[in-house]
Amino acid sequence: MNSPLEAARAAAIHAARAARARYRAGVVEPTAGRAPGMTQANMIALPREWAWDFLLYAQRNPKPCPVLDVIEAGSHATVLAEGADLRTDIPLYRVWRDGRLAGEVSDATALWAGQPDLVTFLIGCSFTFETPLQEAGIEVRHIAQGCNVPMYRTQRMRRPAGRLRGELVVSMRPVPADRVADAVSISGRFPSVHGAPVHVGDPAALGIADLARPDFGDPVEIHPGEVPVFWACGVTPQAAVMASGVPFAVTHAPGHMFITDVPDSTYHV
Amino acid sequence: MNSPLEAARAAAIHAARAARARYRAGVVEPTAGRAPGMTQANMIALPREWAWDFLLYAQRNPKPCPVLDVIEAGSHATVLAEGADLRTDIPLYRVWRDGRLAGEVSDATALWAGQPDLVTFLIGCSFTFETPLQEAGIEVRHIAQGCNVPMYRTQRMRRPAGRLRGELVVSMRPVPADRVADAVSISGRFPSVHGAPVHVGDPAALGIADLARPDFGDPVEIHPGEVPVFWACGVTPQAAVMASGVPFAVTHAPGHMFITDVPDSTYHV
Repeated sequence: MNSPLEAARAAAIHAARAARARYRAGVVEPTAGRAPGMTQANMIALPREWAWDFLLYAQRNPKPCPVLDVIEAGSHATVLAEGADLRTDIPLYRVWRDGRLAGEVSDATALWAGQPDLVTFLIGCSFTFETPLQEAGIEVRHIAQGCNVPMYRTQRMRRPAGRLRGELVVSMRPVPADRVADAVSISGRFPSVHGAPVHVGDPAALGIADLARPDFGDPVEIHPGEVPVFWACGVTPQAAVMASGVPFAVTHAPGHMFITDVPDSTYHV
Repeated sequence: MNSPLEAARAAAIHAARAARARYRAGVVEPTAGRAPGMTQANMIALPREWAWDFLLYAQRNPKPCPVLDVIEAGSHATVLAEGADLRTDIPLYRVWRDGRLAGEVSDATALWAGQPDLVTFLIGCSFTFETPLQEAGIEVRHIAQGCNVPMYRTQRMRRPAGRLRGELVVSMRPVPADRVADAVSISGRFPSVHGAPVHVGDPAALGIADLARPDFGDPVEIHPGEVPVFWACGVTPQAAVMASGVPFAVTHAPGHMFITDVPDSTYHV
């Protein structure tokens, strides 16, 4: 007979595998709130010739680009999720050509077939600490509203690496003023998945003109007494693809993450 | 007039710069306890042809190999210490040929001249949290004894990357049994510089036969009531150089670190 803890773990892994199987079968949806307690990841795949520049860019900008796994050319498997196929198990992919969005697909198998030397990077995602935020009684608005998290390009340029440069992208969650400190403490315990916020309040200082018009994802309501809190976002690599005119890349679509078999607690310090 | 905090910061940076200047002038000494409050770093420089494998090895083994900066071929400067020269400002260097220790020098300028495509990696060092340990009243034995920290090769193999493989190297500090929890908590707040211990007590389980005979550094006294506590160590890359037969590498000598201008608090989460 399993203990309650073992049963909960098995259920969480089952939920992660079931979600990946649904996405492999063609379901498209934002992944926030899916498979609660399991780490979610951003994805970017680049030709091998760009892999060094990207890994260096990530090392130099660990807050938005915390690398959880690197999958070398020729493989589509990851140690973070047994049996997963990175070409099919993300709900929605974006294709980039010469720094411009060239399309979205729910199955990227043909893209990998056309560019077999892709090196794939899985990058931490702030969805990972949304379960602990909720457990502490802090509502995560986009989960409550059943939509995607709002994300914004900022005017904060990151440290460049080789041919890669670009600005910081942030995600935003409204937090009651008297819970901001708790949200900082809780997320700060997860430095590998963006950690503590980069900015609290004052969106104009980041270069965000209108919170109601995010660059990626959906707008969410901000209630009276709430402060917009900004976390570094794993869409930052996509901003670098755009700013740097990268000739070819495949990424996840913002908010449509890769769900792993790794419990959130693994990234708790 | 400076505030006391500003004066303390200026004094700490002055101490770091003075130490680097001494090492540049030829002084050789272990760096534990020097320039208290300033981050210290491990160093490894490899031909460009090995740089990808190494950065991947570090990403896959972040506990022993937390990368603080990568300096591309042709440069010997780092953002972590203005005006520093990585070829001269470390007290003692080791030269590796075909995976074997080929010598030690206090000035590595000629080595860089002979291999101009070296890519240099600076890696977090547990000396960084020794000041907070001492501030909490936990004696750091090797500082008290005025010697180098004891380091041990273990039987724990790391996750390989490309041509690189090797075992975990650990540093050891004896801690009174009733302060082990504090030592774990304090060091755990510094995940970029090895973070919490990897092992507490029971050296035999790591494959360490005799604590009095470290593989690197000096032995230290263990007092009655103290437990040996083991942290992942930035000498782990040197173990990979040996195990993998890397044709050429330059590293710091164990315990003889690069002292940066970055306050410890930068790596506090």
